[in-house]
Amino acid sequence: MQQYNSLTPELIAELEKITPGRVVVEEKINPDYGRDEMPIYGQRIPSATIDVLSTEEVSGIMKLCYDNNIPVTTRGAGTGLVGGCVPILGGVVICTARMTNILRWDDDQFAVYTQPGVLLQDLKAAALQRGLMYPPDPGQKLGTIGGNVSTNAGGMRAIKYGTTKDYVRGMTVVMPNGEIMKLGKNVIKTSMGYNLTQLITGAEGTLGVITELTMKLIKAPKFEISVMAPFSTLAPALDAVPAIFKSFRPTALEFFEREILILSEEYVGKKVWPREVEGEPVQAYLLLIFDGDSMDEIEPHLERITDFLLEAGAMDVMIADTPNKIQDIWSVRSVFLDAIFESHKLYDENDVVVPIYKIREYVEFFVKEAEQYDFDVCYLGHAGDGNLHIFGVSNTMEEEEFKRQIDLWMWAMYDKAKELDGELTGEHGIGFGKIAFYEDYVGMPVIELQQAIKKTFDPKMILNPGKVVFRSEGVQLPGDNNRPNRGKVDER
Amino acid sequence: MQQYNSLTPELIAELEKITPGRVVVEEKINPDYGRDEMPIYGQRIPSATIDVLSTEEVSGIMKLCYDNNIPVTTRGAGTGLVGGCVPILGGVVICTARMTNILRWDDDQFAVYTQPGVLLQDLKAAALQRGLMYPPDPGQKLGTIGGNVSTNAGGMRAIKYGTTKDYVRGMTVVMPNGEIMKLGKNVIKTSMGYNLTQLITGAEGTLGVITELTMKLIKAPKFEISVMAPFSTLAPALDAVPAIFKSFRPTALEFFEREILILSEEYVGKKVWPREVEGEPVQAYLLLIFDGDSMDEIEPHLERITDFLLEAGAMDVMIADTPNKIQDIWSVRSVFLDAIFESHKLYDENDVVVPIYKIREYVEFFVKEAEQYDFDVCYLGHAGDGNLHIFGVSNTMEEEEFKRQIDLWMWAMYDKAKELDGELTGEHGIGFGKIAFYEDYVGMPVIELQQAIKKTFDPKMILNPGKVVFRSEGVQLPGDNNRPNRGKVDER
Repeated sequence: MQQYNSLTPELIAELEKITPGRVVVEEKINPDYGRDEMPIYGQRIPSATIDVLSTEEVSGIMKLCYDNNIPVTTRGAGTGLVGGCVPILGGVVICTARMTNILRWDDDQFAVYTQPGVLLQDLKAAALQRGLMYPPDPGQKLGTIGGNVSTNAGGMRAIKYGTTKDYVRGMTVVMPNGEIMKLGKNVIKTSMGYNLTQLITGAEGTLGVITELTMKLIKAPKFEISVMAPFSTLAPALDAVPAIFKSFRPTALEFFEREILILSEEYVGKKVWPREVEGEPVQAYLLLIFDGDSMDEIEPHLERITDFLLEAGAMDVMIADTPNKIQDIWSVRSVFLDAIFESHKLYDENDVVVPIYKIREYVEFFVKEAEQYDFDVCYLGHAGDGNLHIFGVSNTMEEEEFKRQIDLWMWAMYDKAKELDGELTGEHGIGFGKIAFYEDYVGMPVIELQQAIKKTFDPKMILNPGKVVFRSEGVQLPGDNNRPNRGKVDER
Repeated sequence: MQQYNSLTPELIAELEKITPGRVVVEEKINPDYGRDEMPIYGQRIPSATIDVLSTEEVSGIMKLCYDNNIPVTTRGAGTGLVGGCVPILGGVVICTARMTNILRWDDDQFAVYTQPGVLLQDLKAAALQRGLMYPPDPGQKLGTIGGNVSTNAGGMRAIKYGTTKDYVRGMTVVMPNGEIMKLGKNVIKTSMGYNLTQLITGAEGTLGVITELTMKLIKAPKFEISVMAPFSTLAPALDAVPAIFKSFRPTALEFFEREILILSEEYVGKKVWPREVEGEPVQAYLLLIFDGDSMDEIEPHLERITDFLLEAGAMDVMIADTPNKIQDIWSVRSVFLDAIFESHKLYDENDVVVPIYKIREYVEFFVKEAEQYDFDVCYLGHAGDGNLHIFGVSNTMEEEEFKRQIDLWMWAMYDKAKELDGELTGEHGIGFGKIAFYEDYVGMPVIELQQAIKKTFDPKMILNPGKVVFRSEGVQLPGDNNRPNRGKVDER
């Protein structure tokens, strides 16, 4: 068990030399720096927070903390959902959200050199102004690009464009001992030793602190069309997904239900989506994007997909082909999570991914399973890639009882995901909120291999301790109570 | 320094129990198992070779060799070019080339479960029969899929479709101690702990033995067109590349010179490509592919690219739009390396990748640099991704003098690649032929981080020793003589 030290006044003075005027301690600490967007996993105020501005500052801080066994946790905008940036063992929080400079564009090879604190929405907008696109498209556009890389953020366009990991060409990383490493290069293809950039991508800040990124971009498609299809029940909408995947090349393929749409429309204060068609209430929706360089490319798909969706049971098919219309319908989609959080006192979430032809079976399972509990369920999904976001929510339950019931439900849901050959998380990661489930899901040999890798990067275990592959002694994790008794850990 | 043991008759008897009738020793060993396709790096006959058939067999062999400190090197078809599969420290060679079963197709999520010994050409053909495509497209189609994953093979379609790493969804890996790990899953999106599948992909068999793979496929494009453009000099062809990349979305964009074309046409025994246009000799060629789901998608590009290429100085533009014509022109392209090897007694190669707008500068550099030496130069390139294959060849030089001169040329070429912000290798990897250059190129901190990772996977260092990030004591490496004296290792 690693012994950490506390931050002394002398060490604070040293930190102050590295980042003058930016070391915040005690009651001056912004409490937001102690949490992410999933409050039920708890909040922990660190001993100091520092808004860093450069690689060299981060290097100085890490060296000092390494030499003195002080835990360090990095955060960007703090929009995670599994507690990844919560400093559960205290120590220092490094915040990269003020490293907001886009450093250089490579318009010839479609790449951008950027600091990690640039917001996803700002990076996307700046790229578009040059005719380029940064394709990964998580619903949360206020996350930083550093955070997106650290969690391998996924989002809605993964079906066509992949996830964040597919866009990382190079990075500057400060190692736990303060050493600065430049990994990868701005080249289109390489195979040169172990893929360290991919190892750090998605490692949730446990292996190093990303202080600069070289991200691949693509030429922005010139045209984009959204297609909405309301259904009177969910089942035919989900059943249509594999056939759509097989016969079309959509850029996005989302599904959601009536309740979540109503919540979101109330949240944004406008009504965009139809709630009934010819007097019959709509219960579920599919939302698709097609993009391309010319309408000639897209139009043949539109005719075919319209026929296909009607055939599959859609009550109607609506096409949004102007920027305003597209923005309207997506503005509602993009606030789903905010709307859920805003309207409930208690919530917890899972983020499984299952094969796309098993989505319906999975949905029917967890809805039925939840009937025995007191919380309510909302869910939505990236149907095109099998990634679901499933929320248990309540405004009436006591927190402890909510947690107990959620635990039981989560264990059942993860067991089912495994049975269906899915994975525990599609894009939200492990943080500390999912460690207990993760250990069980993949089995200890896979965890231990990763622990060994963690130790090679961070022998003193000071960087984002108690996350992803290492639980912290004495920290109670979601799922620990109510763990199913299996006799032994299942083989994966 | 690791001490290895020799294979005793008792151990051979144990191996024979695991793989009855397939343990080959002494003079019965096929000498091909001691080399790859780059003979100048040397050949080494191991103590035993075993054609394995299952994960369990590999596990049994690894456990035995681990317990007894016997080096093990895995090979597929042995089509590498940097000595990656050469058992330089002897011991046991495991060959997976007989594990040729395609195990299962997932037509809904576009994936295939396969053993590692399936040849690339067979996997591609079998996928096509189902309307699916395995996009990575190395020139060498006789490599195994296991070898392709182990080297993160690149190829000609990387510009549009990426490289092998982008198609690995899951794998079964036997660890050096014999433990069987199942990593990844057949899901479209996931972010779940450290990316172990990406770490093993491209690790050239130093971290584990891949015994099963789940590879992503895509829906096969229905139409494909090739465009050939001859040029009277190379410079305008190379200068056109960045603009093509910017304004079109080709699937492949290759360049090559007159001499290599003539060698290859002689090798395949047919004349397909024009060698002069209106009496003027052709010196260089660009070759492009466009693909899509309909000719409506492709045709607008064809008209524009034709105009563009003529404007850029092409002597002519020829379109191959029937399967026979396409096969003809690509049959010549696909044997370039074989033709070079067949027609020369001595050859060595480098595989740098540079930014696409620096290809011309790089070519002019290494051609001029080579003028001071006695060997000849041939080269070709994946112009669309900046990856060049540059050969020094000779039929007249003495081997030792050839190696000496090549060393000097290689050091100069790698220094220049670094100056131009390129990488040391685009797709051929490090093996042991490039270790000396690699250490210098990335610097020892990056090497040492990888060495630490290697040790966590393989604490006894028995798996493919002396490769990629670890040189073997006492083994002289290409580049070691004639190393430039820099005073200190450059910062990368």
